[in-house]
Amino acid sequence: MCGIIGFTGYTEAKKVLIDGLTALEYRGYDSAGIAFYEGGSINTIKTTGKVAALTDKIAALNTSAEDTGSTCGIGHTRWATHGGVTDTNAHPHTAGKVTLIHNGIIENYRELEIRLKEEGRIPISQTDTEIAALLLDSLYEGDALKAIKQAVELIEGAYAFCILFADQPEVIYSLRNSSPLVACHAKEGSIIASDMVALIDYSKDYFVVPEMHVVILKKDKIILTDLDGNLVCPRILHVNWDMTAAKKGGYPHFMLKEIHEQPDSLRNTILPRIQNKLPDFTADAIPDSLFDGITRIVITACGTAMHAGLIGRVMLEKLLRLPVTVEVASEFRYQDPIIDKNTLVITISQSGETADTLAALKLSRERGASTLSIVNVKGSSIARESDYVLYTHAGPEIAVASTKAYTAQLACLYLLAFRFAYATGKLEKEACMEEMQQLLNVIPALEETLSQDKIIEEISRQLKEKEDLFFIGRGLDYALSCEGSIKLKEISYIHSEAYAAGELKHGTLSLVTEGVPVVALATQQKVYAKMISNIREVKARDAFVILITISGQKAEPSIYDYHIVLPEIKDEYAPFLAAVILQLLAYYTSLHRGLNVDQPRNLAKSVTVE
Amino acid sequence: MCGIIGFTGYTEAKKVLIDGLTALEYRGYDSAGIAFYEGGSINTIKTTGKVAALTDKIAALNTSAEDTGSTCGIGHTRWATHGGVTDTNAHPHTAGKVTLIHNGIIENYRELEIRLKEEGRIPISQTDTEIAALLLDSLYEGDALKAIKQAVELIEGAYAFCILFADQPEVIYSLRNSSPLVACHAKEGSIIASDMVALIDYSKDYFVVPEMHVVILKKDKIILTDLDGNLVCPRILHVNWDMTAAKKGGYPHFMLKEIHEQPDSLRNTILPRIQNKLPDFTADAIPDSLFDGITRIVITACGTAMHAGLIGRVMLEKLLRLPVTVEVASEFRYQDPIIDKNTLVITISQSGETADTLAALKLSRERGASTLSIVNVKGSSIARESDYVLYTHAGPEIAVASTKAYTAQLACLYLLAFRFAYATGKLEKEACMEEMQQLLNVIPALEETLSQDKIIEEISRQLKEKEDLFFIGRGLDYALSCEGSIKLKEISYIHSEAYAAGELKHGTLSLVTEGVPVVALATQQKVYAKMISNIREVKARDAFVILITISGQKAEPSIYDYHIVLPEIKDEYAPFLAAVILQLLAYYTSLHRGLNVDQPRNLAKSVTVE
Repeated sequence: MCGIIGFTGYTEAKKVLIDGLTALEYRGYDSAGIAFYEGGSINTIKTTGKVAALTDKIAALNTSAEDTGSTCGIGHTRWATHGGVTDTNAHPHTAGKVTLIHNGIIENYRELEIRLKEEGRIPISQTDTEIAALLLDSLYEGDALKAIKQAVELIEGAYAFCILFADQPEVIYSLRNSSPLVACHAKEGSIIASDMVALIDYSKDYFVVPEMHVVILKKDKIILTDLDGNLVCPRILHVNWDMTAAKKGGYPHFMLKEIHEQPDSLRNTILPRIQNKLPDFTADAIPDSLFDGITRIVITACGTAMHAGLIGRVMLEKLLRLPVTVEVASEFRYQDPIIDKNTLVITISQSGETADTLAALKLSRERGASTLSIVNVKGSSIARESDYVLYTHAGPEIAVASTKAYTAQLACLYLLAFRFAYATGKLEKEACMEEMQQLLNVIPALEETLSQDKIIEEISRQLKEKEDLFFIGRGLDYALSCEGSIKLKEISYIHSEAYAAGELKHGTLSLVTEGVPVVALATQQKVYAKMISNIREVKARDAFVILITISGQKAEPSIYDYHIVLPEIKDEYAPFLAAVILQLLAYYTSLHRGLNVDQPRNLAKSVTVE
Repeated sequence: MCGIIGFTGYTEAKKVLIDGLTALEYRGYDSAGIAFYEGGSINTIKTTGKVAALTDKIAALNTSAEDTGSTCGIGHTRWATHGGVTDTNAHPHTAGKVTLIHNGIIENYRELEIRLKEEGRIPISQTDTEIAALLLDSLYEGDALKAIKQAVELIEGAYAFCILFADQPEVIYSLRNSSPLVACHAKEGSIIASDMVALIDYSKDYFVVPEMHVVILKKDKIILTDLDGNLVCPRILHVNWDMTAAKKGGYPHFMLKEIHEQPDSLRNTILPRIQNKLPDFTADAIPDSLFDGITRIVITACGTAMHAGLIGRVMLEKLLRLPVTVEVASEFRYQDPIIDKNTLVITISQSGETADTLAALKLSRERGASTLSIVNVKGSSIARESDYVLYTHAGPEIAVASTKAYTAQLACLYLLAFRFAYATGKLEKEACMEEMQQLLNVIPALEETLSQDKIIEEISRQLKEKEDLFFIGRGLDYALSCEGSIKLKEISYIHSEAYAAGELKHGTLSLVTEGVPVVALATQQKVYAKMISNIREVKARDAFVILITISGQKAEPSIYDYHIVLPEIKDEYAPFLAAVILQLLAYYTSLHRGLNVDQPRNLAKSVTVE
């Protein structure tokens, strides 16, 4: 993870860097630091903690009148991978003439370290990054491009670097492998960063830095070259959202704002894909020929996106009668997966930069599979590497806990399942139209669901003292339970776990004792009686049961402590509504426990390391 | 769950019943009760707690000289499904002339209850069982068989019943649907029970009660009829183990005994299946033609057996290059699974009676799949319903937490994968022989692993105060982590959870803080470097790391708190050895927390309800 930024131009660099780091903080917030040219030399200020701590430290240091200002610098917000969270381990790192920041993991840093130590170059931190700085300094003899090329030949791993050379004032060198970098030139100067959110105050036109190319940022221009110094013309892209969309818009937290944006984000994701009442991917340039000859589907992703895949699997298998497997991307890529040209591999990622998912995608393409990805960020690595892309139009998601991106991913998977079934003759036109109407019905039903805010908040107050919690369900409810659990866990730090309701008694029931909360999802008609039996099993152990059903389902008051009733909807669409309940439950529980909802400890938004 | 027993004969019935219930206690131990004919009427004694509590209660009541002894009665040890754990809810239940015990769940008991209430028949307990007693009494007019037939037509669900009618002294009626029942006639009289362990002191010859048949136990004989009263000849089976094998043999707990039995149980399971150095299923009557035309494999099971399937999946996919999915049986059976005649469905169950697994198997056969089951109990329902059976020769497993059955299941899956690969030409003869030698090497290596007892006990002392714990691994190590977690969880009540190591940072890492134990399995060479990176991530959060590697793997002391080194073995076979470490870790942790290792709260050995 980590967020990085570099700026050289005509205005105060520290302000540009701090603003950028604040916007990038969702990528990591263990430590932060900047380095900048001032008075002929490079100064570095870094600290553990968030960007606000860095701002305080800069302010404290800048009280003297000597502060002449700087117009060139680099900044970093850290999510620790190697070495603990200390000032020394924070970026930037300096070695001789080289000062740099880094996002990624250098896998062979131990080997490099041994080699450097033999030359008497000793690191002072525990980071892989400092090794890169030492290496680069050992290779640098005045020709930055030459040194970078030599370093890249020795370094294995994923990285994005911004580099200052002490003898090249006001110039920033940058390059990347796997980890993301975007750049733009604006009237204020040249900027490069991990994500567009750090650039958007200056320009809506930008380019994605190609892998293994070098970007040279100067005040008046950006030069892009390959590793041999040949000039390359960047491909300019344009974003159609602005920074207000990336701010909290009156909500106390990004997460709550993003939960409430779901009717909109679903509208944006679904409406353009329904034409003549049928699912339609013409505008996405996804032809029906993609479905020809597909005998198997593999969905691979990480975390919440993988949980969206679990729901997608149920819908795809049901409609297509083709076997679908859902694989954790970090497992899939190393398990020599069985895929061929008749396999459709679907990868899902909000950021489009998830390292394991990207690797899984590349492997799938190598093996001849057809690939389709569902991503939220335009021009992201996964989008660029896929045969086809179905964008979720959820807008920027800032809270670490994903909400609107998840439901938009579900919408894409439903649309895909229905289009696939319709295009291959497995679903009649009339039936397909009927399903599209049901999918559209989700939007007003979701708005109605959001109004249950108060009861969820009340339940959350009961949960705030708990340390363990279980989610149970069957079928689609089980798939959703997995997401409900990770949502609660990541922001409330309650140890929650999801179980297929029938599986609970094969071990985990030993943890269900008096007062242990069990969130029981029972929205699926055909397994309702079985679910009620399972709920009786936990109630017989005096669990604290929060039951979620669709309107119209009867439930005896003796089996629950709270009963949340979803608006009437066809079973298959219940996950959209129940997801909102579980998101709100996680949100309020975190809030009542007094935690940082938007930035949970240890986690970062976009996981660009393995 | 629940264990039931019935006896009528020439000796003191209460002793037979209590001995039988003690042997059956692994099936449930919430409450216990007996009913018996004495002095011309039926007496019932029941209590919450274990069989020992029942024995005390009987002793207290029997101090009077009037105790003339009884030679006919029924007994029950309960695992609550409907209604809390109370004396009233304990079995037997009486209604008018009917006194009965029940194992299973009556799904439509609410409907039946409404109907009975209209007739003025009011239950006094919260159980589904009492409804059955009331129903049967309402139908009984002196002809037991007629009343049973009528009742069975009205009852939906799974059940095994033993029934006394007040006006038919010394006779027991019994029948079953799904839930198990075995019976034997010995010189002491006629006995029927849920499991052979309750019969073996009297006879080694027994029969499995066919579903929907009625057994009439009299002192001098057992009569088996269909529901219309036509005589049926039972098929007599013979067991080749005796009760000493089902006792603790000097170990303080069954679990520790069973852990140490693993070299033997693996020998028993593997050796008969290696002929001329190749895997061979001739004696199991499994022909190679089973593998013809198989394009896909589905493994379905519950709990620990399902976790064995996760390991099996890796081996099968690797050797056969066929897609394999592992499905939780309770999900599989209700998800309209995609299987056809080219699918091999493998079901795994220690008891061979797991209700969901049995239903999954029946569904698979209905849909034309080839079926093979891996079970430990001969003549069990799953064994009888499968096309082919590969028995684990692990002997009776009494501890609720499965150990030796799990490793024996792994051995069967490995043998199967290698035979399948060899028979279909995907593995050369020489290579296959080499693998068989590796599999045999597991046995002495496992003996060596067992000797690490002391260090595991030391680590467990550090874990006893912890309330949360994580297991991480990649590939086979991840599959094994799932089993390690459930093992620890079910007997220590520590909330443990298994994670694919690469997935941890997608949410759960927020729970990893100072001192939180993380058991890191790193036995797989090809992902070793990636695992070490993941371990650094948790160590950077000051986790308490217990690292498990194979001998010869280097690991820096800075990344772990304890390092357990397994004997040298090929990566693929490491799960057998690491499983033993995780079993011992669970055992000692439970022990040091002062818990009941063999009978954890809320759990039962054989899950014959859904």
